[in-house]
Amino acid sequence: MMRRRAHPVKGCRRSRTVRKGPPMFVNRMPRYEILSEDAMETLGRGWRRLMTEVGVEFMDDRALALFREAGQKVEGNAVFLDPDFVLEQVAKAPREFDVQARNPAHNVHIGGDHMAFGAVYGPPFVRQGEVRRDATMEDFTNFTKLAQSFDALDSAGGVICEPNDTPLDSRHLDMTYALQTLTDKVYMGNVVSGVNAADTIRMGEILFGGREAIEETPCSISLVNCNSPLRWDDRMLEAQFEYSAAGQPVVLTPFILMGAMSPVTIPAALVQQITEALSGIALSQLIRPGTPVIFGSFLSNIDMQSGSPTFGTPESGIGLLCTGQIARSFGLPFRTGGGLTSSQVPDAQAGYEALMTMLPTFLAGANWVMHSAGWLEGGLVAGYEKFVVDVEILQMLQHEFTPLEIDEASMAYDAHVEVGHGGHFLGAMHTMERFRTCFYRPMLSSSENYERWMRGGGADAAERAGKIYRERLEAYEPPPLDEAIRAELEEYVVRRRAELGD
Amino acid sequence: MMRRRAHPVKGCRRSRTVRKGPPMFVNRMPRYEILSEDAMETLGRGWRRLMTEVGVEFMDDRALALFREAGQKVEGNAVFLDPDFVLEQVAKAPREFDVQARNPAHNVHIGGDHMAFGAVYGPPFVRQGEVRRDATMEDFTNFTKLAQSFDALDSAGGVICEPNDTPLDSRHLDMTYALQTLTDKVYMGNVVSGVNAADTIRMGEILFGGREAIEETPCSISLVNCNSPLRWDDRMLEAQFEYSAAGQPVVLTPFILMGAMSPVTIPAALVQQITEALSGIALSQLIRPGTPVIFGSFLSNIDMQSGSPTFGTPESGIGLLCTGQIARSFGLPFRTGGGLTSSQVPDAQAGYEALMTMLPTFLAGANWVMHSAGWLEGGLVAGYEKFVVDVEILQMLQHEFTPLEIDEASMAYDAHVEVGHGGHFLGAMHTMERFRTCFYRPMLSSSENYERWMRGGGADAAERAGKIYRERLEAYEPPPLDEAIRAELEEYVVRRRAELGD
Repeated sequence: MMRRRAHPVKGCRRSRTVRKGPPMFVNRMPRYEILSEDAMETLGRGWRRLMTEVGVEFMDDRALALFREAGQKVEGNAVFLDPDFVLEQVAKAPREFDVQARNPAHNVHIGGDHMAFGAVYGPPFVRQGEVRRDATMEDFTNFTKLAQSFDALDSAGGVICEPNDTPLDSRHLDMTYALQTLTDKVYMGNVVSGVNAADTIRMGEILFGGREAIEETPCSISLVNCNSPLRWDDRMLEAQFEYSAAGQPVVLTPFILMGAMSPVTIPAALVQQITEALSGIALSQLIRPGTPVIFGSFLSNIDMQSGSPTFGTPESGIGLLCTGQIARSFGLPFRTGGGLTSSQVPDAQAGYEALMTMLPTFLAGANWVMHSAGWLEGGLVAGYEKFVVDVEILQMLQHEFTPLEIDEASMAYDAHVEVGHGGHFLGAMHTMERFRTCFYRPMLSSSENYERWMRGGGADAAERAGKIYRERLEAYEPPPLDEAIRAELEEYVVRRRAELGD
Repeated sequence: MMRRRAHPVKGCRRSRTVRKGPPMFVNRMPRYEILSEDAMETLGRGWRRLMTEVGVEFMDDRALALFREAGQKVEGNAVFLDPDFVLEQVAKAPREFDVQARNPAHNVHIGGDHMAFGAVYGPPFVRQGEVRRDATMEDFTNFTKLAQSFDALDSAGGVICEPNDTPLDSRHLDMTYALQTLTDKVYMGNVVSGVNAADTIRMGEILFGGREAIEETPCSISLVNCNSPLRWDDRMLEAQFEYSAAGQPVVLTPFILMGAMSPVTIPAALVQQITEALSGIALSQLIRPGTPVIFGSFLSNIDMQSGSPTFGTPESGIGLLCTGQIARSFGLPFRTGGGLTSSQVPDAQAGYEALMTMLPTFLAGANWVMHSAGWLEGGLVAGYEKFVVDVEILQMLQHEFTPLEIDEASMAYDAHVEVGHGGHFLGAMHTMERFRTCFYRPMLSSSENYERWMRGGGADAAERAGKIYRERLEAYEPPPLDEAIRAELEEYVVRRRAELGD
């Protein structure tokens, strides 16, 4: 059986920065857990054995040295981990923590019932209507502005799309600068190399008032992916060393497409995911005890006929529910979910697949949700229209996962007396008092009758989404930023770009 | 607190007909229940008060007489019900029951963990690609054939669409005949009037070997809607009298669009739904104690700006989860859910809204799920492409809501030893043994890479769905039927059509 850590954890840091303004989403609904105690015990035996007997490779000498010093068996790049040692390290990580945004109203709390949502991360392409093409820096800034404009999103994320028209070696500076200046929400750090991570941290120091300020309350979250199965690669580890040493949270994420990077059975994938995530988390705690981490999960499967990755599948839904239960058993905040789909376009498949991952994301109560808006075509494409579709889904679910208030007034007995049998409630007092706020008001979904809808042009959801994102971009206003800080950030970008030879 | 009935219920009939062939779906996953005990108690006080003090109208003298004879207070058409009397009647209804299909492999069990799925019910229009038009008998037969061809569906339902080109007075004969002959699955009975119900029952007797056979195990399920708020209309009641007297299950369904047919608060809608459903169920038990019933729910809301009905909303999702918990507290099988949407076309909205009702349908464990395939445009349209989209969603969820097997073999330890760190599992022994069946294999969803997808025509999900339904219709073969029975059914239809003056 997995051990439940006593709480509160020592070293759990609480920010003194209080979020003002519209609160972030807190999921007070029950968690949907599907693993029995027996199942949890079986999985517990599984990861302990895998960790101990097969071990995990770390392609970084500093990591190997840390594990060796801590008494773990190291052979070549493989570390054979003692599960109890790993759990001791895991127990040092905070159960919950804050991440500051430059607008305190957008600070996020990671862990517990809190859920924070960021946009899609990583696509090299974009889709805009019928056009699919290489992503550019203009797309990157557009998506950053969209993320800023929707309250349902807590973060633009990090690499919302690859700005392919910017120089490769200094691209991280451009992206970080855009995220810092075009939004005042939390952002993700660059992880392409240790150098990039150090630049991201330095820019955070400039924006948030120095190293001490961001060590006190971190200002970025960074994604460190495992090269599954069971290997952490050198460049990701370099980034992890930088971020963990600076007390900036990292999301240690097994990157698992079942059938390719893990066995085809979900229990095996879960066991591997635990082994990988905990091994990375243990390393973070060796680098800096108490540094914040997030148990990561990116779990789907391939199509066994074609080998293509598939998203929004039943298997990924199950994996997601299990992951939440497992992460909670370790007392760790966790990342999973999003609005994933394999679909090439924002069609019916994109709609149901996105919800097929996003609804379980809420049922599982994921704390840090990447890919919440804009994911298309298996993550290769950032979709403008899909971005809006996903925000609508997110808004609906944030509404749906808000507990009912059930009291005498909500029972509306007097309205029944007023209306009587077979009447209607449109004009009832109880209705008049509540009609503006009683139901979720859709942004994208249409319930227009056919005639009116046809008169309006008969646009489907994708076409209407196009109208919405264009309006949002037009209405966008940059959040205010101290000009001295902006100048310092610009100066840093210019200087570093020159140093990097771009 | 709502009373939980002791089980098993006396008079609970079990069919001796055993289903052979592919089993129906049994949902062994946990139920997701969101109402606290306190909330359930508050709702319990609510429906007791509403039933007692406001009462329910029954627009049928026989119903009023039955309630009066049973000691209930009757004033005009309003019956003021004693909640304890109602619960006594409810306790007479079977907790679970069977419905026979003419192919025993398609018998269904209603109640417990069993979930049965029927197609959309009621639309006057159809959509086929870009064309939206009046539904015809040809459409009705097409949808019936499609329902027969998909294993995920247990029933074609009843009025899959209105065959507007057939004579109104004898249309029920044409529909019933089509359902009986083009499918060998269970079907729904006509409820337009007592006469229609009697015809449906008589045709069931012909198909299933006489009155005794269908009283022993019913052969149809019929939908009796409440004219919410708090009124049962005469024609529906006529039908209910026929079906309940014959031991044929009826689904007593409050028809609630919050804001119009109920107050705008969900708790009020739930209280009204309980009051209405239980009052109708009590009547069924007065007509024939022990006759099977289903606690019905059709609960969504209107758009408070336009007055349009809306579907796939957060409110309907919440209502659905609550309804399951409430029906179980009365020990009754229940109907709710489906693949509902307000969307005019099978687009992204149709995809996410359909899943926004269908996923909670599974979380709630609904026993009889109408509108599982084909619902479009708020139920005004039966969509050919949407039918296929919904079947794909249904298949995915049936896969997703099948519990994991977690044992040593599923942990695939040997596969890890075989593959090692950073390798891949495509050719591993563990994979080779399972690759054909390990993951859900999509019928509609595409995960083709962009180049291949473009070479294949770049069809979106709706276009691909069109191809699938046309192939299914082409491949359709009618299930075998005894010619003497067919002749008798035909003779009945011809004779009754003449008698009805069409």
